[in-house]
Amino acid sequence: MAEPAKTLDGWYVLHDFRSINWADWKQLTEDDRNAILDEFFELVGTWDSVQQKFEGSHGIYSILGQKADLMLMILRPTMDELIDIEAAFNKTRLAEFTTPTYSYVSVVELSNYLPADKDPNEDPEIQARLKPILPKWKYVCFYPMDKRRDGDDNWYMLSMEERSKYMRSHGMIGRTYAGRVRQIISGSVGFDDWEWGVTLFAHDVLEFKKLVYEMRFDEVSARYGEFGSFYVGKTMDDDEVRPFFSVK
Amino acid sequence: MAEPAKTLDGWYVLHDFRSINWADWKQLTEDDRNAILDEFFELVGTWDSVQQKFEGSHGIYSILGQKADLMLMILRPTMDELIDIEAAFNKTRLAEFTTPTYSYVSVVELSNYLPADKDPNEDPEIQARLKPILPKWKYVCFYPMDKRRDGDDNWYMLSMEERSKYMRSHGMIGRTYAGRVRQIISGSVGFDDWEWGVTLFAHDVLEFKKLVYEMRFDEVSARYGEFGSFYVGKTMDDDEVRPFFSVK
Amino acid sequence: MAEPAKTLDGWYVLHDFRSINWADWKQLTEDDRNAILDEFFELVGTWDSVQQKFEGSHGIYSILGQKADLMLMILRPTMDELIDIEAAFNKTRLAEFTTPTYSYVSVVELSNYLPADKDPNEDPEIQARLKPILPKWKYVCFYPMDKRRDGDDNWYMLSMEERSKYMRSHGMIGRTYAGRVRQIISGSVGFDDWEWGVTLFAHDVLEFKKLVYEMRFDEVSARYGEFGSFYVGKTMDDDEVRPFFSVK
Amino acid sequence: MAEPAKTLDGWYVLHDFRSINWADWKQLTEDDRNAILDEFFELVGTWDSVQQKFEGSHGIYSILGQKADLMLMILRPTMDELIDIEAAFNKTRLAEFTTPTYSYVSVVELSNYLPADKDPNEDPEIQARLKPILPKWKYVCFYPMDKRRDGDDNWYMLSMEERSKYMRSHGMIGRTYAGRVRQIISGSVGFDDWEWGVTLFAHDVLEFKKLVYEMRFDEVSARYGEFGSFYVGKTMDDDEVRPFFSVK
Amino acid sequence: MAEPAKTLDGWYVLHDFRSINWADWKQLTEDDRNAILDEFFELVGTWDSVQQKFEGSHGIYSILGQKADLMLMILRPTMDELIDIEAAFNKTRLAEFTTPTYSYVSVVELSNYLPADKDPNEDPEIQARLKPILPKWKYVCFYPMDKRRDGDDNWYMLSMEERSKYMRSHGMIGRTYAGRVRQIISGSVGFDDWEWGVTLFAHDVLEFKKLVYEMRFDEVSARYGEFGSFYVGKTMDDDEVRPFFSVK
Repeated sequence: MAEPAKTLDGWYVLHDFRSINWADWKQLTEDDRNAILDEFFELVGTWDSVQQKFEGSHGIYSILGQKADLMLMILRPTMDELIDIEAAFNKTRLAEFTTPTYSYVSVVELSNYLPADKDPNEDPEIQARLKPILPKWKYVCFYPMDKRRDGDDNWYMLSMEERSKYMRSHGMIGRTYAGRVRQIISGSVGFDDWEWGVTLFAHDVLEFKKLVYEMRFDEVSARYGEFGSFYVGKTMDDDEVRPFFSVK
Repeated sequence: MAEPAKTLDGWYVLHDFRSINWADWKQLTEDDRNAILDEFFELVGTWDSVQQKFEGSHGIYSILGQKADLMLMILRPTMDELIDIEAAFNKTRLAEFTTPTYSYVSVVELSNYLPADKDPNEDPEIQARLKPILPKWKYVCFYPMDKRRDGDDNWYMLSMEERSKYMRSHGMIGRTYAGRVRQIISGSVGFDDWEWGVTLFAHDVLEFKKLVYEMRFDEVSARYGEFGSFYVGKTMDDDEVRPFFSVK
Repeated sequence: MAEPAKTLDGWYVLHDFRSINWADWKQLTEDDRNAILDEFFELVGTWDSVQQKFEGSHGIYSILGQKADLMLMILRPTMDELIDIEAAFNKTRLAEFTTPTYSYVSVVELSNYLPADKDPNEDPEIQARLKPILPKWKYVCFYPMDKRRDGDDNWYMLSMEERSKYMRSHGMIGRTYAGRVRQIISGSVGFDDWEWGVTLFAHDVLEFKKLVYEMRFDEVSARYGEFGSFYVGKTMDDDEVRPFFSVK
Repeated sequence: MAEPAKTLDGWYVLHDFRSINWADWKQLTEDDRNAILDEFFELVGTWDSVQQKFEGSHGIYSILGQKADLMLMILRPTMDELIDIEAAFNKTRLAEFTTPTYSYVSVVELSNYLPADKDPNEDPEIQARLKPILPKWKYVCFYPMDKRRDGDDNWYMLSMEERSKYMRSHGMIGRTYAGRVRQIISGSVGFDDWEWGVTLFAHDVLEFKKLVYEMRFDEVSARYGEFGSFYVGKTMDDDEVRPFFSVK
Repeated sequence: MAEPAKTLDGWYVLHDFRSINWADWKQLTEDDRNAILDEFFELVGTWDSVQQKFEGSHGIYSILGQKADLMLMILRPTMDELIDIEAAFNKTRLAEFTTPTYSYVSVVELSNYLPADKDPNEDPEIQARLKPILPKWKYVCFYPMDKRRDGDDNWYMLSMEERSKYMRSHGMIGRTYAGRVRQIISGSVGFDDWEWGVTLFAHDVLEFKKLVYEMRFDEVSARYGEFGSFYVGKTMDDDEVRPFFSVK
């Protein structure tokens, strides 16, 4: 048996994608729409309090294309909190005007393919990466992925040494995007249908394409990567949510 | 022809996943909602009686993410009882407020890759594993799986000796999780679309990820495992069901 | 070109799977429900007459799990009759309370991999197998399948001799289940999305699992079998249909 | 680069599959249903005029199984006419009582793997095959297909000579069905999701199974054929359409 | 690691496919339908202004077959504008009578497999290709595609030299269609589920089939191309939109 890499696990993550039922939404009076958004912002307010105490984080994103109009991304120290938050959102009036289109359950993860020289529980940088406050960078990209197990291209049959070498090369590409792309890797083995979820943030949306394209030529992706659906969109600040839902 | 492993078969299992139609549910009066839950608990009460006599078992779980809100898992000595239970639930008023999202039909199974040294019909431990009362551990994970039949990676062309060796290594990983993860393997060849269903229980949800990830490097999974969708959630005690359905 | 096996073809078969819209069904008055079932039984009565004259056969089955609640299986000497029967059922009031979930179009088939020593048109046993009256055995199982055409595992590139050898071994497993499992193989090349439909009947539902599991280790399945969805359920006698639809 | 075969292209084809919403249809008065069918026959009348002038052709078919109840097959010299006809049908009242289930866009095609010895534009037989009036044979079968491009089984990497040899063998099987099966091959590269659509007509529906089964052992299908869904049904004469839609 | 080709990126593109809910649309009064189309043309008018300033482009197309009735194709210098345009269209009354069926998010791209001899930012021809005004050619074809990564057929493991050679041959085929087919390649790595979107325009719809068929024999497609769904249809001039939506 090949030796698994050790992983460090941080906050649990729910990505929740929704499309808006505009036809129904538009039939409401403006007062109704405002009341519904007020109720939603009350819920978001409780999330803000959590984030201010660094006990979780969240973001609201508008997604381009028909796969979804809206993505909520929520991070919490326990999966229980995510279950409660999902139920609370589903019980809001706003949720009645949305259709679920995709979701992803995972936990922030750092793969430890490099020899460790410090205690991760003490290292503030590692802790900040395991419990990330979502950056307010302008664009967001999400996709799930697997490592391939197909004939001669079977990641899980490689030795730890081979995998470390591959991941090192992969990490080096990632580092050349420092300051331009921030990435959160979350593991979902045992939690959802793919093995990892990848969430990227950038100031320039084209950086997503450049990074993913460049990595695809890297052997770890070229031979061993399997990719799910890609979602791309824009970070919404709180004051952008009402305009997003406004109807002339 | 390769010699099949002998299997011991116990109780039949129905996994029944549902999403809740919250918009319709919320439009009911609180009295209506309570009456509907009363009717549901009446049905659950009959299941409780069965379980108290060790003639079956069941659990109610809340599932994280959009794949489902609720999972019912029901075990009975005969498939007939499961057909009746499914129909009875479908005829409740509560079922009107749910949408079926996935189900799985299987039978609890112990694969006998090791030489038998005792009569399984007499062995109380084996009997308890074939007719399990579902543990009230906090978290649940379900996924279906196949053994691969693809080119050089064809499980069903291996000799009994090779398969036994593989399964022994697999079992040894499982045993290191004793006390942390309980698993129920149920066979579904001839009953449903995958060959097995795997239901895991844990006190700490992260154990699911650790176990499944570690096993993926084991050759039996790495080369021969094909996995379906993963569902993860939380065991609901009876007194947690009403809060789950409560609406402000 | 490899020589195809000769096939004998019998009655045409329609498998028609439906789920019941219980919420709508329950809103009817009991008088309405009875009138709707009366109309359905009038149609079934015409099918009974046909079966009594050995000019066709049919069965009504309850299916476990969410894939369907009900399966109708209808056999007739011509496809025209099946088209008429499907239309007649679709025009009943009962059909309004069902949602089609799957169907399968095929024709009962005997593959002739063994040298023939008698005229099949004269042989009463062969005729009975080509024009089967469905047995009232307690359980039913249906799945469609293909023979694989993938790289080195290409059934259709094997010689007649190799295929005969494989099928002989396969048939020998089947024969050990005589009296426990009855099977109807129906060919669907040119009629539906898979090459064959397999319908099994048993007194003990566990026999389906044992048979299909044992056969999977046979090289003809292990290397050359591709399987679709499995449906499992229970034969309904006429006097079980009304209770199935009854609502408290 | 392998040399492509030359193709001759004739009329454009739209296969349009629909299921009937019987529940809604039955709620109409008989007068309403007749008025709706009158409007539909008015449209069909314009198609009949076109066919009488040999400027197109069309057929109406009832399909067995849940994939569809109805298939319209329309051929025209230009794709523009098909767009207009689809829109015209969609705007009829009858279309309101149908649900689209599948469609296919292609153009009648003759592959030219044999050396040409006459000018196809002058040859009346070739012209009749490129611009076919649909035969009123009793049964119809439709399926889309690809030539495989997978590892060692890559049709598009074969030489023209190899492909010609394969297609010749294939054509010889087809010819043994002359008078029993008529086939229209239509190319859809660049138009729809598969590379070809195959429409077969027969007096005896079993001929579809015999032909497709026999061809599957031919290397061009065995190694290089990929097949989509199969639809089978019956040609409806104009005077069979009203009975098809009649409700007791 | 194989060296990625450099790409030049231009305008962002949204392909938005919709089917029309004709049954609902027909129930409106003609005045209502006209008012709804007036509102839509007001929005299109703002797009026209943008196009007149060469700050974007757009087209409206009718699609043949059931995959969609309508395609909107919109190009803009930023993804933000596409998000706004999609939301604006979704909030129109016309959108209420459409069902989203497919969408694609990408950015116009020129792959640079040839050595560059001029500054692309200065070259007016390259700039015109990166920021294209959509041609009013009569027919349109769209499909997404990937380069294959499968066993020995792994595009991303080839050297830059090999890929350049392949792409050169591919480009030479394309050039023989100059004046007959115009193509816009848009990259979607990191943005959508396939790696590229291909939009073709032609005066004769048969050219799509000829081009795609000829290219399929080219090794870069034969061995390395994976193709998604194909959509084909007709360019609608502004004065063709109202007739398209007109109801007798």
